[in-house]
Amino acid sequence: MSPAPIAITMGEPAGVGPELIGRAWTHYSASGACPFFVVGVPEIISARLEETRQHIPLKVHRGAGAPVPTPEHLTIVPPEGALLSDGVRAGVPTAASAGAVTGSIEKAVSLVREGAASAVVTAPIAKEVLYGAGFVFPGHTEFLGALAERHWGGKFRPVMMLASDELRVVPVTVHIPLSDVPTRLTSDLIVETGRIVARDLERRFAVPMPRIAVCGLNPHAGEGGTMGTEDRDIIVPAVAKLRAEGVDIIGPLPADTMFHPRARATYDAVLAMYHDQALIPIKTLSFDEAVNVTLGLPFVRTSPDHGTAFDIAGKGVARPDSLIAAIALAGKLAAAPTP
Amino acid sequence: MSPAPIAITMGEPAGVGPELIGRAWTHYSASGACPFFVVGVPEIISARLEETRQHIPLKVHRGAGAPVPTPEHLTIVPPEGALLSDGVRAGVPTAASAGAVTGSIEKAVSLVREGAASAVVTAPIAKEVLYGAGFVFPGHTEFLGALAERHWGGKFRPVMMLASDELRVVPVTVHIPLSDVPTRLTSDLIVETGRIVARDLERRFAVPMPRIAVCGLNPHAGEGGTMGTEDRDIIVPAVAKLRAEGVDIIGPLPADTMFHPRARATYDAVLAMYHDQALIPIKTLSFDEAVNVTLGLPFVRTSPDHGTAFDIAGKGVARPDSLIAAIALAGKLAAAPTP
Repeated sequence: MSPAPIAITMGEPAGVGPELIGRAWTHYSASGACPFFVVGVPEIISARLEETRQHIPLKVHRGAGAPVPTPEHLTIVPPEGALLSDGVRAGVPTAASAGAVTGSIEKAVSLVREGAASAVVTAPIAKEVLYGAGFVFPGHTEFLGALAERHWGGKFRPVMMLASDELRVVPVTVHIPLSDVPTRLTSDLIVETGRIVARDLERRFAVPMPRIAVCGLNPHAGEGGTMGTEDRDIIVPAVAKLRAEGVDIIGPLPADTMFHPRARATYDAVLAMYHDQALIPIKTLSFDEAVNVTLGLPFVRTSPDHGTAFDIAGKGVARPDSLIAAIALAGKLAAAPTP
Repeated sequence: MSPAPIAITMGEPAGVGPELIGRAWTHYSASGACPFFVVGVPEIISARLEETRQHIPLKVHRGAGAPVPTPEHLTIVPPEGALLSDGVRAGVPTAASAGAVTGSIEKAVSLVREGAASAVVTAPIAKEVLYGAGFVFPGHTEFLGALAERHWGGKFRPVMMLASDELRVVPVTVHIPLSDVPTRLTSDLIVETGRIVARDLERRFAVPMPRIAVCGLNPHAGEGGTMGTEDRDIIVPAVAKLRAEGVDIIGPLPADTMFHPRARATYDAVLAMYHDQALIPIKTLSFDEAVNVTLGLPFVRTSPDHGTAFDIAGKGVARPDSLIAAIALAGKLAAAPTP
């Protein structure tokens, strides 16, 4: 039996998400790889596709039964509840569409919980727009964590990984000012993150004995405490604790020498201490193909590694590479045998 | 008339410097490109070469007249004064060699001042070893700055650039703890550094209208001040000032999206705000070929982008790529027409 299809959320209606979903469908239709359906508002998706001259036959799936993608139609599953049906212009976001955006994410997670989808791929959202409509989560990832708790019960700690064929990297701290990184970084945070990364590399990525490398925070990993003390006082104990738990982990290593090809051959994933330390190497190596993967959830979730790109939305020039890579990785992770 | 040869300092006698100079000479002897001589202690260099099975004919140049490299001999110019002649073992540094190390650097700069050399390439030194013998400079670069002031007069502010065929990048702050970066970063520091980079790109690298891109400090360059204020308060005014002075400069830009191939095509050099922000991308792209170039001096100085590597010194396995690239770049910069 083949796995259930992938559910892609439409994302921000005024951004590049809907038009890229059309490009990804054309890729699927030609290749047959990774069947998916979209969760979103049919009228909005239709308008965005026509606008970018993508004349794709649409099929709206309503009511009971699992949606079945075919290479002949783009299957759309509308979210629950009252919806904005039209009037959104490319590049001009409106808070009126917020309910449809969050509703699509909720519906996609429900479908995974029911077994009608094997994974969720999320098109980019515009957090500022959602905040204006009362959205209370810092971002996509935290919202998905809350939905996981609602549907599966228990507590989940979502962890962001960026992945490509070249590199997998996890920032331990993410969207905070650089000046807050040294104070927000704790041994516990590194240990918790490292556990989730080790477990999901094994469980989702089917890496039998995952090897993790940890970046130092300071230049040259602090040179034994002479160039910053956090490497010695925070990272070294965290690595020792994870190693004592059986994780194959090394570090802290000087971050600048960890990302050339010979170094990358020595590990399966990197723990980086802050946003740019993680994102500079992966975007340098795999700008168009890097995928955002959320670890720590009870289901597979990936997303393209770009935003809504309002400046080019509706122009038909946005590149679908990252969304297509996100779908392919979601399919691969969803198909991995869970040990 | 061809330019004067390049002077290479022998560097730390117990490190990989002397054996790599032998490899670089073999490369020169076969190719004829970038003639150079070594400034160092003949007995030490001879011992390191024999130990790594490099049977290279040596010619010691003493006394007056400019040394003339030939493809038949490795020409060695001893430094002035009393010298340690032997007894240094690979991998085992000793403070007894400190005078010969610093003396070689002093002699090389004198030879450039006299016109007997067109540029200085420095093999790696071990600062800790020199500190034990009373060396008072933070590193190589500051020592060269002081020698420039001694020989040329005036004040010089040396600036470290890392350069390869893929990228040129300058860290505005360098060997300080990450937690000190936000407080040590000032608009003046960025402006001073940017001026030197713009001037030397034009004067040394023969780039007629240099384009400089500036990294943000915080994730996404601070998102307009909502994720850290330094981008808005420190970097934006510095970029505005440099632009008002006629420098073709943009930024602060989100650092993670600045180093993929399409982005790199839009500038001639990057100003990064801290060590790893500069060194991660260049070592990811050009680990073996990156060269350290000192801007802001009255002469050309390059060095390989690696250290003394005591752990592999004397084993004959160290890679000469970066030293050979440093010599090639020194030759190119020394030959550039000064506008």
